[in-house]
Amino acid sequence: MANYSIGVDLGGTNLRIAAVGEQGNLLEKITLGTRVTLGRDFVINDMCQAIKELAAKYRTAKLIGIGIGVPGIIDLKTGMLHESPNLPGWSDYPVRAEIEKHLSTTVILENDANSAALGEKWLGAAREFDDMAMLTLGTGVGGGLVLKGRIWHGMTGMAGECGHITVEPNGALCGCGNHGCLEAYASATAIVRMAREAKANGGALARAVSADPEFSAKAVYNLAIQGDEEAKNIFRLVGRSIGIVLSNLVNALNLPIYVIGGGVSSAWDAFSPSIFEELRKRSLVYAASDPQPQANRQGASAQVRTVGKSRTIVTRALLGSDAGLFGAARLPMIS
Amino acid sequence: MANYSIGVDLGGTNLRIAAVGEQGNLLEKITLGTRVTLGRDFVINDMCQAIKELAAKYRTAKLIGIGIGVPGIIDLKTGMLHESPNLPGWSDYPVRAEIEKHLSTTVILENDANSAALGEKWLGAAREFDDMAMLTLGTGVGGGLVLKGRIWHGMTGMAGECGHITVEPNGALCGCGNHGCLEAYASATAIVRMAREAKANGGALARAVSADPEFSAKAVYNLAIQGDEEAKNIFRLVGRSIGIVLSNLVNALNLPIYVIGGGVSSAWDAFSPSIFEELRKRSLVYAASDPQPQANRQGASAQVRTVGKSRTIVTRALLGSDAGLFGAARLPMIS
Repeated sequence: MANYSIGVDLGGTNLRIAAVGEQGNLLEKITLGTRVTLGRDFVINDMCQAIKELAAKYRTAKLIGIGIGVPGIIDLKTGMLHESPNLPGWSDYPVRAEIEKHLSTTVILENDANSAALGEKWLGAAREFDDMAMLTLGTGVGGGLVLKGRIWHGMTGMAGECGHITVEPNGALCGCGNHGCLEAYASATAIVRMAREAKANGGALARAVSADPEFSAKAVYNLAIQGDEEAKNIFRLVGRSIGIVLSNLVNALNLPIYVIGGGVSSAWDAFSPSIFEELRKRSLVYAASDPQPQANRQGASAQVRTVGKSRTIVTRALLGSDAGLFGAARLPMIS
Repeated sequence: MANYSIGVDLGGTNLRIAAVGEQGNLLEKITLGTRVTLGRDFVINDMCQAIKELAAKYRTAKLIGIGIGVPGIIDLKTGMLHESPNLPGWSDYPVRAEIEKHLSTTVILENDANSAALGEKWLGAAREFDDMAMLTLGTGVGGGLVLKGRIWHGMTGMAGECGHITVEPNGALCGCGNHGCLEAYASATAIVRMAREAKANGGALARAVSADPEFSAKAVYNLAIQGDEEAKNIFRLVGRSIGIVLSNLVNALNLPIYVIGGGVSSAWDAFSPSIFEELRKRSLVYAASDPQPQANRQGASAQVRTVGKSRTIVTRALLGSDAGLFGAARLPMIS
């Protein structure tokens, strides 16, 4: 049997553990509920039990290593978790050391959005590319950069926090305390907030918000595809915000591909036109590698020429909720 | 004698050619006016003459190679220039091939802002670091990224266009056709524009603008240090815009050091306080690596902790107008 590694996606809701072959083939996946309320020791115990189970079952093959994707900011040196809203009580706790104690072996800890980016780079939308960026639109907005085939960590492992790139300097308040972050416009939480703000206007969106106490981003999407103008406007704002952030990334990094994933990305058809509109307006670098004529780009059309045949790609993620799991399994293979 | 290389900084105003030793020691520098109006053949001839002169003079040492920093976007594959407002008539002209024909040897062409970043990385403010970003605030705003000791070019060589990162989505019109780019707030051109816009308000700034048809960014700075509130506000806006862009770069890339250079950077004391204000507000990543207490960061103070001892540095460039020249000379040494 071929070599394999074990990947873990530790989310606030689900805890998933998978054995993945070197070629990216899924051997087995275990999905558990994350028993966050029972405390971190319980969760770590559940995780380590499942890892041991898989390791025992596939013991005839070589286990390359164990990679664990965790929501929140990780101090790569100490293996401690900083700021994890989805894992209350885990901050400044030696997560990696505890897991390693349970398993009597080393593990690689990684931010979940970075893991998702690595998964999409390995087996998903960016598998043909060495350099890529990914935005994960979920309850919050995460980001990950892969440069020359490896996760770009930056100085302290905090790189890729693209959810907190400023979109509107005086815009909506973000959970991080800043105003106008991407997360305040393109997360599921933001979509629900914008829908509630639009409630005062009356109309179908207002009725939907009032009727359903558990009103969700999905409900706004359903209204948008039925043609509700207010719901459509919300997704235009989602796309515009993503487009501004992508324009900034394209201008700064000139990567070949940008992947949009996470639950909110299923509303791709509602928000993606606005992404491309912003990219063409805001990024000379994108325009220069855009196959479309730049007729709508005032004034600059004559100056913009396609550089070589290279085209900047902005596309949906392919692995869905498995991106982070596959990415985590990939970590020990390239470390 | 030690090995050396020849660096060229081809600007719209000055053409500078230097022989630089492997240790970064300047052997000789030739400064010529760039005779742009006489056409590109004249300029290339002037440049190649000076290069030949230096090569002949130092012929007892080994010439490692020749690097040339050029304003504008370069197609790295073809060595053609795209969009160079400072070198009219040079677009889509095989610059590299022409120079190589004159010199009968290969040369390395590089964007001038990238060259400046490499210069500051080699011998300037970022010499202790492998990863850095630089903003060059001049007539326009250029940018350059150095990752793992090398210029980050991106897919088509257009990376580092940080002057066109969006600061205000509906803000001032930029030369690139977009609204609200950094360049529209932090270039010398933008400072003069903002001063003219403020003219209607009366006051010292208005009088200065009216009195001097060649009113410059330097004049606004002089008023700012004399305490003129309007002039001070302009530099606050300069700093705020730079701060927003740096926050975005810190959040995305988590680099250890960001260097601010170019002519406008001599107004550092007028605009830098606003940079740090924005960074603390807008970048969790910066706040987590900031030695200052986060008392002014509403709500989030309890969550922000310094990760390790690493500190994000934002500082002035050290090499002044020589950064690009030294960076150009460095190119053949690391290629």
